Parts: sequence; C-alpha cells; structure tokens
Amino acid sequence: MNKITPRTLSGFMELLPAPQQQMERFLQTLRESYALYAFTPLDTPLVESAEILLAKGGGDTEKQIYRFQKGDADLALRFDLTVPLAKYVALHAGELCFPFRRFQIGKVYRGERAQRGRFREFYQADIDVIGDGKLDIVNEAEIPAVIYSSFTRLGLKRFQIQVNNRKILNGFYELLGLADKSGEIMRTVDKLDKVGPDKLRQMLVSNVGLSEAQSDEILKFMGISGSNAEVLEQLAAYQGKNEGFDLGLEELKTVVKYLDAFGVPEENFAINLTIARGLDYYTGTVYETLMLDHPEIGSICSGGRYDNLAGYYTDRRLPGVGISIGVTRLFYILQEQGMLNDGLNTAPADVLVLPMTEDLTAAAQAATLLRGRGIRTQLYTEQKKFKAKMSYADKLGIPFVAFLGEDEVAQGKISLKNMATGEQSLLSLEEAAEMVRAELNAREAGSLLLG
Amino acid sequence: MNKITPRTLSGFMELLPAPQQQMERFLQTLRESYALYAFTPLDTPLVESAEILLAKGGGDTEKQIYRFQKGDADLALRFDLTVPLAKYVALHAGELCFPFRRFQIGKVYRGERAQRGRFREFYQADIDVIGDGKLDIVNEAEIPAVIYSSFTRLGLKRFQIQVNNRKILNGFYELLGLADKSGEIMRTVDKLDKVGPDKLRQMLVSNVGLSEAQSDEILKFMGISGSNAEVLEQLAAYQGKNEGFDLGLEELKTVVKYLDAFGVPEENFAINLTIARGLDYYTGTVYETLMLDHPEIGSICSGGRYDNLAGYYTDRRLPGVGISIGVTRLFYILQEQGMLNDGLNTAPADVLVLPMTEDLTAAAQAATLLRGRGIRTQLYTEQKKFKAKMSYADKLGIPFVAFLGEDEVAQGKISLKNMATGEQSLLSLEEAAEMVRAELNAREAGSLLLG
Repeated sequence: MNKITPRTLSGFMELLPAPQQQMERFLQTLRESYALYAFTPLDTPLVESAEILLAKGGGDTEKQIYRFQKGDADLALRFDLTVPLAKYVALHAGELCFPFRRFQIGKVYRGERAQRGRFREFYQADIDVIGDGKLDIVNEAEIPAVIYSSFTRLGLKRFQIQVNNRKILNGFYELLGLADKSGEIMRTVDKLDKVGPDKLRQMLVSNVGLSEAQSDEILKFMGISGSNAEVLEQLAAYQGKNEGFDLGLEELKTVVKYLDAFGVPEENFAINLTIARGLDYYTGTVYETLMLDHPEIGSICSGGRYDNLAGYYTDRRLPGVGISIGVTRLFYILQEQGMLNDGLNTAPADVLVLPMTEDLTAAAQAATLLRGRGIRTQLYTEQKKFKAKMSYADKLGIPFVAFLGEDEVAQGKISLKNMATGEQSLLSLEEAAEMVRAELNAREAGSLLLG
Repeated sequence: MNKITPRTLSGFMELLPAPQQQMERFLQTLRESYALYAFTPLDTPLVESAEILLAKGGGDTEKQIYRFQKGDADLALRFDLTVPLAKYVALHAGELCFPFRRFQIGKVYRGERAQRGRFREFYQADIDVIGDGKLDIVNEAEIPAVIYSSFTRLGLKRFQIQVNNRKILNGFYELLGLADKSGEIMRTVDKLDKVGPDKLRQMLVSNVGLSEAQSDEILKFMGISGSNAEVLEQLAAYQGKNEGFDLGLEELKTVVKYLDAFGVPEENFAINLTIARGLDYYTGTVYETLMLDHPEIGSICSGGRYDNLAGYYTDRRLPGVGISIGVTRLFYILQEQGMLNDGLNTAPADVLVLPMTEDLTAAAQAATLLRGRGIRTQLYTEQKKFKAKMSYADKLGIPFVAFLGEDEVAQGKISLKNMATGEQSLLSLEEAAEMVRAELNAREAGSLLLG
C-alpha cells in the first residue's frame, strides 16, 4: 500500500507526552485559579457562522480567518474568545445574572504567516466580567489580582502587570488639541520602547505631523515614571483641564488603591502611560504583562475595559473588563527558556507493576488496589526480557516499579523499587501505596515554572 | 447600527453556566479516571491536512467531513480521535515507548443531518493502548475496567459493558461456509435486538440469501446466553473445528478470567455474541456499553482490538485496543433523563462577599483571604439595593453570602449566611473559611450522576 507521509500542519502545536503533561498542569492551574476568583467556565463552539464572527470584520481578521462552506452554511473557526462571548451574552442575556463572570480556555485559529513561535492554532485563556448597563471600577482593580494569582500559582516570579487608562490618554491628547490624531499618535508611541525617545520625537514630527512643541509635550508625559504613588502625583499636574482625563485619573487611582487589598504586591504592578492596546475597543483601564527578564517577548497577557461588548448583536449595553493569556505562545516561550520545572512527574504512571509470573491475576489485583488509592498505575503486560521492562520504566521516568514474583504473590506483598534512589523494599500494598504517595507529594511540592 | 441576530449553529452544544459546570465535572472525572489507569493525555490539532484525515476515505466520512482550503492547503476538521492518533504514533514512533497508552478528550466534527440529540461538534473521550508489533491480550481485559471505573466515579450504576470477539464470529461463519458473506450477515444480525429472531431469520434468508438451515444455525448461535461461564461453556461446543474460532474463544476466556482481578463486577459485564462493531477495522475483542434502563439509546461507549493502527502512514505494525465515550451525546441523554445530580454546587462561587460600606478595602481583603484558602469567592461590586444583591446570590445558587458592614469591619469579622438554612453567624475569616469548607465537602460527597 502506498503510504501517506504523516505530518502535523505547520503552526499547529503537537506535544510529546512529557511536555503535554506539563501543558495539562499549566491549563489545570489556570482553570483552578480562574475558578477561585468565581469566574464560571464556558465552552462555546469552535465553529460559528461567519456572519457572526465577522460582524466587526475588516483588517487582519478577514485575512487570517479560516472560513469555509458546508452545504449552504458560511462557517468559520473562531479567531478569539471575545466575539463568541459577545454572541453568547447577547443570545443568552435573559438567562444570565449580571455581573456575569466567565472564563474560557480554548483553541482559536488565525492563518498568520507561519514562523517560529507563532501559532495558527493556539489556546487563549480569557476572563471577563460583564455588567448590564454599568460595571463598577473595582472590577478593573481585581483583574490584575487574578493574573497575579494565576502566574504565581504557576511559579512565575519576575513578571509585571502594566496598567494605563485610555481616558487619561484621550484626555491628554484633547488637551493638546490632538484628539483627531490620537489613534495615530498612540500607534506611534507604542514603539517608544523599541526606538527610544529621540527617534520617537522625530517620528511624531515627520510621520504624524506634530509640532516640535507637541512632540516634546508627549515625550514629557510618556516619560512620567516612578512608583505608582509618584506617577499619580505627576499626573495630578494635568488635572482640572479635561473631564475625560480627570475621570481616567480617578479610575487609575481607584485601581491602584485596591491592589493591596486584592493581594497584588507593588513589584508586580506598574502604571505605564505608553500602553494603549487596540484602538477602537478599549475605553478605560488597559493591561499588558511583561516578563521582566524577557521584555523582548512583549506582552504575555493583555486586556482592558470596554464599554459595549455585544453592540453588533444587541441593543443592550454590556460594558465589561477582561484579560487574556496567550497560552500556547507563552508555554512555547517558557519551554524555550528552560523555565519548565522538569523535577515534576511527567511520566504517565506513578507505579509500573512488573509481573514475574505467567498468570497476571495477582499483578492485576495489585494494580487495581493501587489505583483505588489514587495512584496512577500501569500493569506491564508484554512478554519481554527483564532489562527491556526496566528500560521502559526508566525511559518514561516512572518513579516506582513494583515486582510481583512467586514469593511476593505467596506473601501477598510487592517489592517496590524507587527508581531514583534504587532502594527496594518488600511491602504490603497498603505500605507501598503510602510510600508512593509520600514520594509523589514531595515531588509535586514544586511549581510548574522555575523563576 | 444594524444588528446581526446572535445564534449558535444547529448541532453545536452550547451550555448555560450551571450545566456547563456539570459538564466540566464530567470531563474532569474522565481525565482523572483515565490518568489513574496510566494513560497519558494527548492534545492533537483539530485541523489536519485533508490528505491525512481522508487516507482511508470513503463512505460517510467523506460526506460528513468539514473540509476547506486555506491558501494552497487542503484542510479538514478531525472527525474522530483515532485517525489523529494513528498519525501521531506514525509520526513520533521513534520518540514513544511501547506499549503506548494515551487518552484524548477533545471535540470532533461530523456534518450529519441535524436532529435532536445528534451533534455536529461533540466531545469524544478515547483511550488506546498501542503495541509495537504485538500487544498482549491482557490489555483487552483491562479496557472494561477503565470504563467500569470511569462510569462508577461518575455515579452511573445501571450499565453493562458487552463484549464479543471478532475471531469467534469470523470463525463461526467460516464453519458455516459463509466467510464471504460474513460482513453482510453481521450487519443483519446487528438488528436482532430491534427486529426479533423471527424477522431476522426471514431477513437472513430473503436479503442475504442464506438457507433456512444456515439461518437457524446463526440464530441458535446468537441465542447463546446466560452467565459468562455458561456462555463460554456453550461456545466450547463449537471448538476444535476452526483455528480462528478457537483462538477467539481463548481470548474471550482470558478477558473474562481477568475481569475480577481488574475489579469489574460480573453484573457490569456480559458476553454478547451479536455485537460486531465496524466491519473492517476491529479484529479481536469488541466492546459496546448499554445503559440497562435505556437500551433504546444504543451503545454509549464502544471500541475494540485492531491489528494495524497506522497502516496508511507507516510500515510499522502497530496493533492496539481502544474504546471511546461519546461524551456530548451521553451528557445530553443524562440531562434529558434527569440523571444529573443537581445537589452538586453549580454556582460560580462558594461565597459572595457583600460589602455594606462605601469603601471596599475590607471586603476585598476578605475575598482575598478566602480565595487564599481555596474558597471560590466573588466580591459583589455593584451599587444595587440589598434585595437585588441577595437575589443575585439566590439566582446563581451561591451557597454562602458574607456581609461586611461597619460593625463587621471594626471587629475584623464577617457575618456569614448559609443561603440554604438561612442561618447567619458572626465569624472570623478563619472560622468562616472552615464553615464553608465543611459545607462544600458535604455537598460534594455526592457523585455527578444519580442512579
């Protein structure tokens, strides 16, 4: 028979078993962490009507979307989790309670140019709080706490959630009489970290057409830095001249005020006036998150406040605030950086039961008992040489091997070998289960990420 | 703005938050149960090259598959988890250890005619054990144990895993000189439960063209029943005339022999000679699973032994055995039958913190502390009347409400109200956390399914 060469599409992550175990831990940690903050899990279809997904349309979305016909239906794969959320809330609004807090962790699809570290199928892990008509600013202070808690549970330490407020930016540009150019200015200022202040000044003058004085004003404003309290103090100098600015500053103050109560240390949080995010969606607080030792990676978790989630589908005004982790890319980066803790157990089993008798009854019973005690147990069934069996356990990194020869069967015991230390003991199944449990607990004490 | 009517595609399950919580429990139980049996989780792409997915091609697959172009690529959505597994194992064989045991729980896509209870996007939950060259029969005895354990953990009681062996069927039809008609006969016999023996005899004669004597022989064979031991004894009468039959009978005996050691009670397991499954894929043991009170639903979990997983992609012979739960359909049925235990907590939060002061600092601190103790906590942030706030907790079924007024803040305590009993107590946060934990443990003692 002619063979078809097996292959996985470029841009589609497919992990080997050991890293997949780490990815599962990653996703499970996020699920637990999001649930702890009382977000309810949702799972919407990966396929939606193209009309629904492209309601907003335009730009990269139309180019990148996977769109196709099935019968008469014009369908597409979701490219984010926000549009399906908008549809869900518009469709089910009458059955939901507001504020509606949901998390969703799922795959999304974007047919981008394939390149290293860029994925066409990738997990996003989103949380959003949706209000009915209004939504209190305190929710905007809570979002960084969810992210701080999630990353901390994963074991990530050197990260910083950066926050800005779009009302401050819009107000500031209005103050300068540059409201009509604010979009272009924000896109340009977004490059500050990359090009530096001198080049930025030049770009603002030549590309955006600002005066030297205006550019200087913008650079001065973007240069505001220091502790959160210091930044807020410097911003106060601009107060009283623009209503939007003042409102944004109040909001930012509130966000900063509640950080401590929500358990976010100051070192993991900073006001950064240069971030703006998407230009026509966010209306208040915006978030980005940097890995402090790898700023070159850009934001690993972004989001913000929006005033109208589902305007394409309903007249009901649904303001909200949300944030999203690009899980697949982040996992890829952590793996590349060697930050995944390989001390954690990535074997498929905790114990491999190796029968040394022809009849496997006692071995099957032993496996059944260990499983009943919550220990992941594999019964090795194949007729192989002893060495091959041990090498199987070894290659998979299975922590314990349990031998069952005639002596063990006669005594109703097993010989349990700790593969790391080489120690072997003749134990009852209950004793063995306890020994395995203790060792597993010790190994699982570490977090998924190092540093 | 013109609105687009929000809708979800027909045949695509989209659950409201409370049933989604139950679905999450369902999936998590399967993950844990499969892992306990030392299957390693895999997560392959939902999109693959159409050439890969359609390597076998033909029949319903080609008609039902979602296939589309993106640029030059001819792509499709996976329609099961077996073909992606075959590709995965063929592609990564050099990096895997055999026997390779994997589970995968993921969505698959089939553009079937939409009808009630049929889904175009649905979860499958598969386990497979793949050998390199050979695979011991004991694995075929272990598969029912995994399913028994999974369903029992879910709380399902009245189910029966039914087993047959294709070698027995093939051998028996060879004995009758009907080897060339065996496919057609099996398809016809599959209808026995529906049409009854008399109608079946008629069909075998008129439709398949068998003699009356041959039909009678088949009906006699298919009528073999009783306990597993009784069935095996009756099958022994056919022994010694056909090598395949004898081998199949030995395999079936071995499967039955190890059931008890693997912890499967006899009442949840039965030999059923009428089941055959897919005609050209399975080669040995085959499984179906019935809900005893709802046989009309058909099999909720099926699979079997196959000799060559990945013959379309590699010359390496990879025999295996696997089984698959059609999760979405099963969940739908359980929901329809009222079998989901609604005593379990489906609220997004365990505690709703209701601040009664303008400043939310103390309330945010209380929420943070409860979360730190593993209690899913929501801080209610909106300016609403007291009644509206309580109604929010009530509608969502949140078990506890924690009030924080000035008195409570001054004392560093909260007033914790059990929403089910109406009892309210002034407690320290530590005491409150303990009370909530105890109540949650009591509620979570039940299983997901009733009966």
